[in-house]
Amino acid sequence: MIMSMDLEGVLVPEVWISVAERTGIPELKLTTRDISDYNALMLHRIKVLKEHGLKIQDIQDVIARMDPLPGAIEYMEWLRPRFQHVILSDTFYEFASPLMRKLGWPTLFCNSLQIAENGEITGYTMRQLDGKRHAVLAFKQLNFRVAAMGDSYNDTAMLKEAELGMLFRPPEKVRLAFPELPVVTSYTEVMDHLLEFAAKP
Amino acid sequence: MIMSMDLEGVLVPEVWISVAERTGIPELKLTTRDISDYNALMLHRIKVLKEHGLKIQDIQDVIARMDPLPGAIEYMEWLRPRFQHVILSDTFYEFASPLMRKLGWPTLFCNSLQIAENGEITGYTMRQLDGKRHAVLAFKQLNFRVAAMGDSYNDTAMLKEAELGMLFRPPEKVRLAFPELPVVTSYTEVMDHLLEFAAKP
Repeated sequence: MIMSMDLEGVLVPEVWISVAERTGIPELKLTTRDISDYNALMLHRIKVLKEHGLKIQDIQDVIARMDPLPGAIEYMEWLRPRFQHVILSDTFYEFASPLMRKLGWPTLFCNSLQIAENGEITGYTMRQLDGKRHAVLAFKQLNFRVAAMGDSYNDTAMLKEAELGMLFRPPEKVRLAFPELPVVTSYTEVMDHLLEFAAKP
Repeated sequence: MIMSMDLEGVLVPEVWISVAERTGIPELKLTTRDISDYNALMLHRIKVLKEHGLKIQDIQDVIARMDPLPGAIEYMEWLRPRFQHVILSDTFYEFASPLMRKLGWPTLFCNSLQIAENGEITGYTMRQLDGKRHAVLAFKQLNFRVAAMGDSYNDTAMLKEAELGMLFRPPEKVRLAFPELPVVTSYTEVMDHLLEFAAKP
């Protein structure tokens, strides 16, 4: 069995919202709820960073001061010896490291930034379109049973592809749009679901 | 990039040889070099364990006293913050946990034992035939570049499928049979190869 998990909103706070708050740049608070086109949103973020002279190191400094959500570290400690698990995220390796360290370095499938020699973020590379769902498909092709959890629209394809797909504290809109997906609101509930799933033949 | 690694002979000693030595049962020393049919070999091992009344807990106790190869823990500490990595092994989850703990809980793709209520090992389940190569193929389908290392015949399909496939301290026979695969004899050499590979566009 493999447990596939989204990162932001599930194990750690939303990175861009934290960056917006700690840099005092409200324009960085926009998410896919405000600009639904992910590419347009990322280009907007890169432009705003450039306008404020913020380099990769500045963002990394902010992220290094972030902490996982309350209970997430203990949940990962519980998960680690019990079930194989992978983080499937739309974030960037260049952002994720300090948070991965705090979570015990789980395997992470995500994307990469393009960074100039002076540290300016100049672009990004998506490893694959619909990457979360493709990862679950790949695990299934390797004959793994797959459980998954995520909190938002960009997780629902992965959750529906998994044998057990859980919405973790989703926004009301997401919950209503996907009534077929079970909703969990605590890591204890996630643990119960995983134990039950693993015990099923 | 993902680094795919065999476990036994590469990061930890051969488990069945350690079990043979510590239980004093020389018949458990046979490997695929002696019985080339893996299924016949495993059925032989299970029969020998049963004859000696050895249960899963006895084997786990032996494995819990094993240590990773010299330098393997430091190599994993170096690898962890730098490159995504997965262990691809023909071992069993029920055996691997104590060693995985010592290696910092890397993600492990392997197989499962069938265990009776009294702890007797009654059989095993291979997740997939040619599972190591299939895992590398899956990572490539997810648009990862793949590096790999292993030490023996059952690794060569994975090594040839990877963009960078390294033989780690292989037996002479394997080295001669696969002259196209680069040979490494220390973790330092592995690190150098990985840095060079990651720097290549």
